[in-house]
Amino acid sequence: MTANPTGLALGVDVGGTKIFGVVVDDQQRILNELRIPTVQGGMRDWGEAVTEEIAVVIHSLHHEAGLAIGSLPICVGVPGMVDAAGTLIYAPNLQSATQAPMLTQLQRQFPDVAIRIENDANCAAYCEFRAGAGRGHDDMTMITLGTGIGGGIIAGGRPFRGGRGFAGEFGHMVMDPKGPHCPCGASGCWERYVSGSAVERMTAEALIQGRLDTIVAQRANKSVALTGEEVSAAALAGNREARALLEPMASWLARGIAVLATVLDPTCVVIGGGLTDVMKLFLPEVRDLLPTLLEGGVLHPGIDVVPAFFGESAGAIGASMLAREEG
Amino acid sequence: MTANPTGLALGVDVGGTKIFGVVVDDQQRILNELRIPTVQGGMRDWGEAVTEEIAVVIHSLHHEAGLAIGSLPICVGVPGMVDAAGTLIYAPNLQSATQAPMLTQLQRQFPDVAIRIENDANCAAYCEFRAGAGRGHDDMTMITLGTGIGGGIIAGGRPFRGGRGFAGEFGHMVMDPKGPHCPCGASGCWERYVSGSAVERMTAEALIQGRLDTIVAQRANKSVALTGEEVSAAALAGNREARALLEPMASWLARGIAVLATVLDPTCVVIGGGLTDVMKLFLPEVRDLLPTLLEGGVLHPGIDVVPAFFGESAGAIGASMLAREEG
Repeated sequence: MTANPTGLALGVDVGGTKIFGVVVDDQQRILNELRIPTVQGGMRDWGEAVTEEIAVVIHSLHHEAGLAIGSLPICVGVPGMVDAAGTLIYAPNLQSATQAPMLTQLQRQFPDVAIRIENDANCAAYCEFRAGAGRGHDDMTMITLGTGIGGGIIAGGRPFRGGRGFAGEFGHMVMDPKGPHCPCGASGCWERYVSGSAVERMTAEALIQGRLDTIVAQRANKSVALTGEEVSAAALAGNREARALLEPMASWLARGIAVLATVLDPTCVVIGGGLTDVMKLFLPEVRDLLPTLLEGGVLHPGIDVVPAFFGESAGAIGASMLAREEG
Repeated sequence: MTANPTGLALGVDVGGTKIFGVVVDDQQRILNELRIPTVQGGMRDWGEAVTEEIAVVIHSLHHEAGLAIGSLPICVGVPGMVDAAGTLIYAPNLQSATQAPMLTQLQRQFPDVAIRIENDANCAAYCEFRAGAGRGHDDMTMITLGTGIGGGIIAGGRPFRGGRGFAGEFGHMVMDPKGPHCPCGASGCWERYVSGSAVERMTAEALIQGRLDTIVAQRANKSVALTGEEVSAAALAGNREARALLEPMASWLARGIAVLATVLDPTCVVIGGGLTDVMKLFLPEVRDLLPTLLEGGVLHPGIDVVPAFFGESAGAIGASMLAREEG
């Protein structure tokens, strides 16, 4: 065991399917990393079980790096609303983790270690702002397109968390009160129109209407229903049916960015998450549409809309940055 | 002429119909005030003309208070998007003032005086946060309901202006893409549903449908069309038809607050502007609806929704506070 070499920090990104932990230096280089599957939920104490897994990742990364527990500041990004006490109050895609006192549990296991719990999209936003696609933009908004939509806000060069740490839950802005029903209870939430689940819904509807015949014909295994991921891959490979199917996401993405611009006035919007690559196909259209949707039209100063640089590592690296700087 | 007694500051609130200037002490007491009608627009140099009027107000207030120019810090709140150079880039209700370099013009006339130009709703929000209905809420959102909807954001106890000073333009969040057309070019903007112009629209529609017969019957002068203001006054006086007509504003106000809560997570929302009194009738309903519209439902911590304390003086007093503290 050695003392902490200057500037190392540990970041963990907790997702619905995997937990990804990294030890990162102050140049954003990953020195060690560890991925383990997320324990599957449903049980009442899921929050406790996943926090136990996070503790295992923290232990293992210290061990691999030859560092004593306590030598690295730690930040854990989680997919939900976290309060100031480090309790995961509500996670839309991990409902059984509701009200999980994650920080209390981790501090019991790691007393006297600087640990913080942070919203995962805030971590990703901070990473892209400090070292990625949003560099130089002190007022930046990050939109992560995954199963749903996550959001992170940088205001004046700092993460903006709101009064209780719940700011940036963009996915549940209602875009059309008569729109599709959302598991959150409302209708027409933004993530019904632009997200992995939106791609799944559009795919299912298109299959019924026979609008994806060329893709269906090309598939080897015809006994399994076409997935949204296959449609995204086909669009990226140049399939016109797939591209046409996904194209409405361009206008919905632009409309949501227009609402965010109205409220937050960012100079840059970074698009990240699992759908980043497929959305790159539509960013030129989004950039064309956006000025027509903003109050003041052409008088409104431009907003850079750019794809994320760090990809899926942004959350864990951003967590390590926040651990180092705010731990 | 005497030197500046400790803590005095000058605030000006520029509206579409009047310019209101005040000299305020550090206990938010108004020592002098002046109201003059706003020069009416349409001409190309409206921005220059109104800035000239502001200069007159500044001169007169100093003179009345027996203070030398330069002894008071000054802040001017204007109804539109102001950039960091103090240029009014775009004012939706004062389109001929577009691109008016107000700060440059004022500094020419008052060199070496600390002057700033600020969005009017930001001024009102700061006033309510520091001394009014939002006191104690470091993360507060102010919604001003006038002809349209204005907005001011307090984040971490400071005004939040966004990357270019254009944050908080809530009135043009699109709430329903198939909604009524808005002069801004979009459809279904929030201010189409809750604002003075929304009341006018609802009144005009109701008159055609004969839904305001008791109010119409009670009027002395039947040759002039019933106005939205009369309907608001009737609702405040207990008229059921008027109240029923305006009631949809409760749910639209709650829906817009839900979008803002999703993005900004304020602990308190202050409702101000000319419609404050009539909206007080509906605030109990807004408070009941809001938790049903928030992600996480009952798990989402409560948001105080309260009427503004300072009424129509909030903008000018808030401007004086910002002049004193940030001048």
